[in-house]
Amino acid sequence: MMRLMLALLAALPLFAHAGQLAQVASPDGRNVVQLDINGEGRLAYRVLRDGKPVIDDSRLGIQLRNGRELLRNLKLDAQASSSFDETWEQPWGERRFIRNHYNELRTTLVETDRDHRRFDVVFRVYDDGLGFRYEVPQQTALQRAEIEDEFTEFAIVRPAIAWWIPAGEWNRYEYLYNHTPLVEVSQAHTPITMRTADGLHLSIHEAALVDYAGMWLRRSDGQRLRAHLSPGGVQGASVVVSTPFKTPWRTIQISESAGGLVESSLILNLNEPNKLGDVSWFKPAKYVGVWWSLHLDTQSWATGTKHGATTENTKRYIDFAAANGFRGVLVEGWNVGWDGDWFANGWGFDFRKATPDFDIEALSKYAASKGVHLIGHHETGCAVSHYERQLAEALDLDQRLGIDVVKSGYVCDAGQIERQDSPDGPVTREWHDGQWMSNHHLHVVQEAAKRHIAINPHEPIKDTGLRRTYPNWVSREGARGMEYNAWGDPPNPPEHEINLVFTRMLAGPMDYTPGVLSLTGRGGKEIQSTLARQLALYVTLYSPIQMAADLPEHYAQHLDAFQFIKDVPTDWFDTRVLNGEVGEFVTIARKDRNSAQWFLGAMSDRNPRTLKVPLDFLDAGTRYRAEIYRDGEGADWHGDARFRFKRETREVTRKDVLDLWLAGGGGQAIRFVPLEH
Amino acid sequence: MMRLMLALLAALPLFAHAGQLAQVASPDGRNVVQLDINGEGRLAYRVLRDGKPVIDDSRLGIQLRNGRELLRNLKLDAQASSSFDETWEQPWGERRFIRNHYNELRTTLVETDRDHRRFDVVFRVYDDGLGFRYEVPQQTALQRAEIEDEFTEFAIVRPAIAWWIPAGEWNRYEYLYNHTPLVEVSQAHTPITMRTADGLHLSIHEAALVDYAGMWLRRSDGQRLRAHLSPGGVQGASVVVSTPFKTPWRTIQISESAGGLVESSLILNLNEPNKLGDVSWFKPAKYVGVWWSLHLDTQSWATGTKHGATTENTKRYIDFAAANGFRGVLVEGWNVGWDGDWFANGWGFDFRKATPDFDIEALSKYAASKGVHLIGHHETGCAVSHYERQLAEALDLDQRLGIDVVKSGYVCDAGQIERQDSPDGPVTREWHDGQWMSNHHLHVVQEAAKRHIAINPHEPIKDTGLRRTYPNWVSREGARGMEYNAWGDPPNPPEHEINLVFTRMLAGPMDYTPGVLSLTGRGGKEIQSTLARQLALYVTLYSPIQMAADLPEHYAQHLDAFQFIKDVPTDWFDTRVLNGEVGEFVTIARKDRNSAQWFLGAMSDRNPRTLKVPLDFLDAGTRYRAEIYRDGEGADWHGDARFRFKRETREVTRKDVLDLWLAGGGGQAIRFVPLEH
Repeated sequence: MMRLMLALLAALPLFAHAGQLAQVASPDGRNVVQLDINGEGRLAYRVLRDGKPVIDDSRLGIQLRNGRELLRNLKLDAQASSSFDETWEQPWGERRFIRNHYNELRTTLVETDRDHRRFDVVFRVYDDGLGFRYEVPQQTALQRAEIEDEFTEFAIVRPAIAWWIPAGEWNRYEYLYNHTPLVEVSQAHTPITMRTADGLHLSIHEAALVDYAGMWLRRSDGQRLRAHLSPGGVQGASVVVSTPFKTPWRTIQISESAGGLVESSLILNLNEPNKLGDVSWFKPAKYVGVWWSLHLDTQSWATGTKHGATTENTKRYIDFAAANGFRGVLVEGWNVGWDGDWFANGWGFDFRKATPDFDIEALSKYAASKGVHLIGHHETGCAVSHYERQLAEALDLDQRLGIDVVKSGYVCDAGQIERQDSPDGPVTREWHDGQWMSNHHLHVVQEAAKRHIAINPHEPIKDTGLRRTYPNWVSREGARGMEYNAWGDPPNPPEHEINLVFTRMLAGPMDYTPGVLSLTGRGGKEIQSTLARQLALYVTLYSPIQMAADLPEHYAQHLDAFQFIKDVPTDWFDTRVLNGEVGEFVTIARKDRNSAQWFLGAMSDRNPRTLKVPLDFLDAGTRYRAEIYRDGEGADWHGDARFRFKRETREVTRKDVLDLWLAGGGGQAIRFVPLEH
Repeated sequence: MMRLMLALLAALPLFAHAGQLAQVASPDGRNVVQLDINGEGRLAYRVLRDGKPVIDDSRLGIQLRNGRELLRNLKLDAQASSSFDETWEQPWGERRFIRNHYNELRTTLVETDRDHRRFDVVFRVYDDGLGFRYEVPQQTALQRAEIEDEFTEFAIVRPAIAWWIPAGEWNRYEYLYNHTPLVEVSQAHTPITMRTADGLHLSIHEAALVDYAGMWLRRSDGQRLRAHLSPGGVQGASVVVSTPFKTPWRTIQISESAGGLVESSLILNLNEPNKLGDVSWFKPAKYVGVWWSLHLDTQSWATGTKHGATTENTKRYIDFAAANGFRGVLVEGWNVGWDGDWFANGWGFDFRKATPDFDIEALSKYAASKGVHLIGHHETGCAVSHYERQLAEALDLDQRLGIDVVKSGYVCDAGQIERQDSPDGPVTREWHDGQWMSNHHLHVVQEAAKRHIAINPHEPIKDTGLRRTYPNWVSREGARGMEYNAWGDPPNPPEHEINLVFTRMLAGPMDYTPGVLSLTGRGGKEIQSTLARQLALYVTLYSPIQMAADLPEHYAQHLDAFQFIKDVPTDWFDTRVLNGEVGEFVTIARKDRNSAQWFLGAMSDRNPRTLKVPLDFLDAGTRYRAEIYRDGEGADWHGDARFRFKRETREVTRKDVLDLWLAGGGGQAIRFVPLEH
């Protein structure tokens, strides 16, 4: 054969002979991105931190199905640099104010051969990492792009270990995290978290996934990861777009500490500002509901003697919510369609019609009379087109009844989302994170916003920070949640929730549904957690809506611990990660957005440990009553020791240092209440 | 969320509680396949050898784009066992007779839920491994299948290392082999070769890839590999077929020794018998041609002063071929279209029209007058639809001129094959090993067969043994070949050709184009081989057509070594792997199909070594003159030491044992000529 020059050059060490084309540094100067074009006209970037390489020469390009790849024979046509610095306010979140401070490099590339197609690559470099995206302008030679894949690479220089879940498998995101050398990653979802041998923490993810397919990462060889777009479903190509278009931002967060990744706001910063205007109609809040009993199988979604969503049972939950200050009551199984084989079979669901034993009109009024709101529930069973056809009417109903948060669901195997473009047309399959579903989710969120309804999808597409632009997209699932503690084998091990903090949670809020103080799943299965740990979850796993997931009768048995669940807020003025190592332990402090109180949550893996925590995050000149909910002596993550629990109070100031003793699988939760002067 | 029962079961150790459904053993009883269905109705197989697990519970199923996955809620409807034993004759090959001896288990699965779709899984278990495939009958609920992917898994039980090349990357198959722990495989092409910690050798591949997409292997986690089908190009789904259909065979070859994999005929046995009838018109033979000078860039494909394919130059090669007993003369660059930017730009090629300085009519006659045949050359530049439109006329021309072997080419990046269904329609992109290309290649082979022409595609689809069914598909490239020694960086290291024996060559013949006795690439670049090694390649890397790739003037400088190239045949009665370890060394003996002569080839990696080789493969009662071409004293794979070479002769019988000393990067070639009684 005869690849000749091209093959020759491709076989050379990448860009060994290329000169540096363009460069941009972060505001603090520590992160530097350099761009090169090699002799073959292939574009690559590299990243340095403190002068040392972090990302080695990594190729950039787009593979088309309806044209030659945008990859070779490129030359730099123009470049422009700019700086940006603003501080913006979140309507709700982990912190009220976020600084968005970056230097931008925009490069315009043009092909030197016959088509002369053009595109820009835009880099934004922050002190805590960087993002880059392709922007393809309208042009005669490329009016419509059928994108087969991206050539975007991330070649990690220093030997690293990774925490990751597989992509392209039967499951969606509901895995325990793999913890392996980076060279053992096969194909992973983002965010993927890495730690290099010399202690640098990296996370690769994406921001602003709009009208595009989700990015998976496939390791090609060594520590070189490459973008692989979620498959295209019926349209074939992973992405079909008209020019002009912009890809999502490909992001690399960089931090010496694991906690630095958690404190980073890079993903939000790379999203567009709020498009909804005043969203004060969304109220961050806690909720309860008929949920855990369904997973315990003591009640059912289906109608009949075990039906959970009955008028009477729901009234009991409304009373419980009102009595304890919870705003929401979620009632799954309220609507028509649950009887029979519903798994991945959502064509029988009707989101406009309650079951006969669920008097939704009366219940809404009853709830309103007590200051409580029903939370809507739309399990699609993956019949997404069927759902879309009812969507407007279903949301109209919710709006009329004062239901202003809706939990949706997409239960089926990966790649099995059901699409039917016309009512009698064929049913085809899509992926949960393909382009079609990215558009579906945004469509739901936008329709809901019109009606002042917030959305909380389960089995969702991953979070890429779109809550900044659409603040009614308040939470989602997208990881192995609490329900695996009801019936999963194994249940979530103690390190899982710590892994979540440093992986899944980097994407955004998660509706993990904590607070199962009974610590027991189906058939007596032990939850691998102490009692105090269940409380810590409300601080460590952020969501603006948080469920008190256990049954009222179980809370009645643990009223001392339950007090923390009643007290903890779900909206924050500030967030600090005080310590932590991925999969081992973490301590997070958050300040309430609506008071001067601070809250702290700490968690340990299966090993007991003592964490020395200086309280210097507390406000100066203030004395606090620290309400401490901690593991009792002899507490541990299995057997009766799970329930060993101690509640105590002491006075502290920011000059104090606490020794937090955490049991194996344990945790600690603290409320800091300013004392009157 | 609520996966409930299904999720619960899926999370259980796979099939821990399932009973054994069906079982089949190899004729010698050592290999056993067991089938199970778990509580979720998911089907899996496992493989044991000598009672110990080799493949752990591995799921089976098909993911559709136009229907629910064929995966769950399966029950066994019927099973049937049978045995088969025949010996068939190859028209040409590594051996004349092949025994096809297996036990078969056919299981019919049916869905227990509403669709009641059915399919069979058929296992054929041999002493040297096994194959299995899905057979989907015609049925109302599944008339047309758009296959997104297969769930076919291969869970390797024992810790293993692997030799593999990446799939889904920009290159096709032209990589150096990765040699890593199996857990570091990301996505690999087949054949992939593995060796377990306890010394078992495994190769996973496929047989009879017809009207289907090539199978890649993606590691999901641990040592679990999963089928991933080459992407679908414009049709979207990887495979679109009507029922009834059969998938290719998924194959697992098993051997205690590395050489056992090479001796296995499992891939051929799982293909259909010869459909072409008498193919004696194909003549296994050696050829020479204008090729190495093009890669050295001393001549060019393009017309002009450097043009290689001129009447005069070709006459020189015809004379050289005739003088030395070579049947074929390959002349690349003979046709219109090479001038300008031809790379991945094949729309200007015309395979019916020679350049003005190439008198194809006169040359064909001149060649025929000397008993020589021109070899045709069809470089498509990946404009495959353009090629197909000319195919019949191009082959007609070849047939008329006595051109009975055609080398074709598909030079472009992976995924960039150009398809245009109608002359004015859009040009879309396909993968080299997608369903569309699998059909293209077979179409070319069938059209060629009608005209008694043999096909040798470069940048091809991988070999899956279809030469049994279409014996005019005589060879192909599909790996990093000799041309990388002209301009590759790095050139092929000594271990590469040994890796090829145990990986790529398991698929079938390769047109590696050996015999570059000048041992020097472009600009004086050293080929990492000794002189004797170039001779050994004719025995170790099987192809029924073998090039003497170097220039006539170079052979004139090494007439002693050149003698072996003149003597070695390309068609064999039998093949024996005498010793070998993947990537380290190998010795192969082959008996000429048309005489009583034996030939031996041995190669070493960059380390020198002495191999003790008993000659007990030789025929009993016969004395042979062993014509030994070996590394000379002080030979090595770099510098002048490459050329140290010794030719010697001795008499041997099957009772002798030879000590083969191989230099680093060296080799040895021996011709055993029976002595007259």
